[in-house]
Amino acid sequence: MGRLRWQVVAAAVGLALALEALPLALRWLRARRRRPQHEVLFFPSQVTCTEALLQAAGAGNAGGAGPPAGCRCSLPHGESSLSRLLRALLAARVSLELCLFAFSSPQLGRAVQLLHQRGVRVRVITDCDYMALKGSQIGLLRKAGIQVRHDQDLGYMHHKFAIVDKKVLITGSLNWTTQAIQNNRENVLIMEDADYVRLFLEEFEHIWEEFNPTKYTFFPQKKRSH
Amino acid sequence: MGRLRWQVVAAAVGLALALEALPLALRWLRARRRRPQHEVLFFPSQVTCTEALLQAAGAGNAGGAGPPAGCRCSLPHGESSLSRLLRALLAARVSLELCLFAFSSPQLGRAVQLLHQRGVRVRVITDCDYMALKGSQIGLLRKAGIQVRHDQDLGYMHHKFAIVDKKVLITGSLNWTTQAIQNNRENVLIMEDADYVRLFLEEFEHIWEEFNPTKYTFFPQKKRSH
Repeated sequence: MGRLRWQVVAAAVGLALALEALPLALRWLRARRRRPQHEVLFFPSQVTCTEALLQAAGAGNAGGAGPPAGCRCSLPHGESSLSRLLRALLAARVSLELCLFAFSSPQLGRAVQLLHQRGVRVRVITDCDYMALKGSQIGLLRKAGIQVRHDQDLGYMHHKFAIVDKKVLITGSLNWTTQAIQNNRENVLIMEDADYVRLFLEEFEHIWEEFNPTKYTFFPQKKRSH
Repeated sequence: MGRLRWQVVAAAVGLALALEALPLALRWLRARRRRPQHEVLFFPSQVTCTEALLQAAGAGNAGGAGPPAGCRCSLPHGESSLSRLLRALLAARVSLELCLFAFSSPQLGRAVQLLHQRGVRVRVITDCDYMALKGSQIGLLRKAGIQVRHDQDLGYMHHKFAIVDKKVLITGSLNWTTQAIQNNRENVLIMEDADYVRLFLEEFEHIWEEFNPTKYTFFPQKKRSH
């Protein structure tokens, strides 16, 4: 009888432990066969506070100072299309290619600078009209030491895409400006798709090489006589 | 001996017929397990003649008058990003939703009119700035009897997408203007993907309802006193 009782107790404890472990095991299994990232963001985005998200990314840079204290500003603190876009960018660990017609959003600019500080290799292609425009983030990125190249054409460099770690493509109609994020009807696709990433990366490298500053013409009206 | 010879002849004929049929069988098999459409078009597009493509689509409308005689203009007659975009649109048999910030390309306008004539249900959403702009295709589409709705916001209706037969999504950075097609760096994705199509269709229906003319405000400064 004593032995049977112990067996029952042992079985009960075993069952309890197994039930406890089940959700963990399921989560582990789900993570292993995670679907590739496949998301659409629509804008205008609700205006939310992205301070916690950016501070957490910055704290990571400072050697893991831990998550910041909750922000108490009057904005909503939930998810929004902008916060999701920031999250997709801040996931970068190795490289970030940006090919953007217009870039003036301070939050997105800060995210890109954080990645650069964290050692991510950031390269930016933009349209010449946005190189020195008031409110443009491009000058700040250049000052921070990030490489930027631009066209010299009459046609626009009108792409709006980013490639994260040569693995995730972010592309759509959205220019990275506060006006577009908060007021326009826009879409952004976030796609973990090897075929699309390869094609957009080829396009990036092609333009990057074509916009090499050694090929710029500074005084087209001057004849190259010497 | 005579019998053996006939057997050899029959086997040879059988083999020849089988070899003849093989490519057909392979093509049939390939068509059956065809990969969903999955393509990227980059612009600027080479300027090519799209007359044959549009005439063939028009001839189809006139009751199958057959393919047109080859065009002899001085433009190249091969494929280009524009011709591929036209092909993707002209594949529509039932419905076409267009949600476009700017639409002035005559070739794309002609393709949309052809689809309308062919009985495809075409609906267009555009930005109010482009309703009556010189060179815009929107007025021509309206005159042809195609339903068009537009925003009344200060923010832009900046999407640039199309949905063909509720099956294929066409989206990217490209405004449907000749300037963009011929001079800008642009991208367009053509995706046969049920998830993306569903999300963009929801966005379309949502905007379509929001821009219902019964909700327009024509004299916002007037008070509704009666």
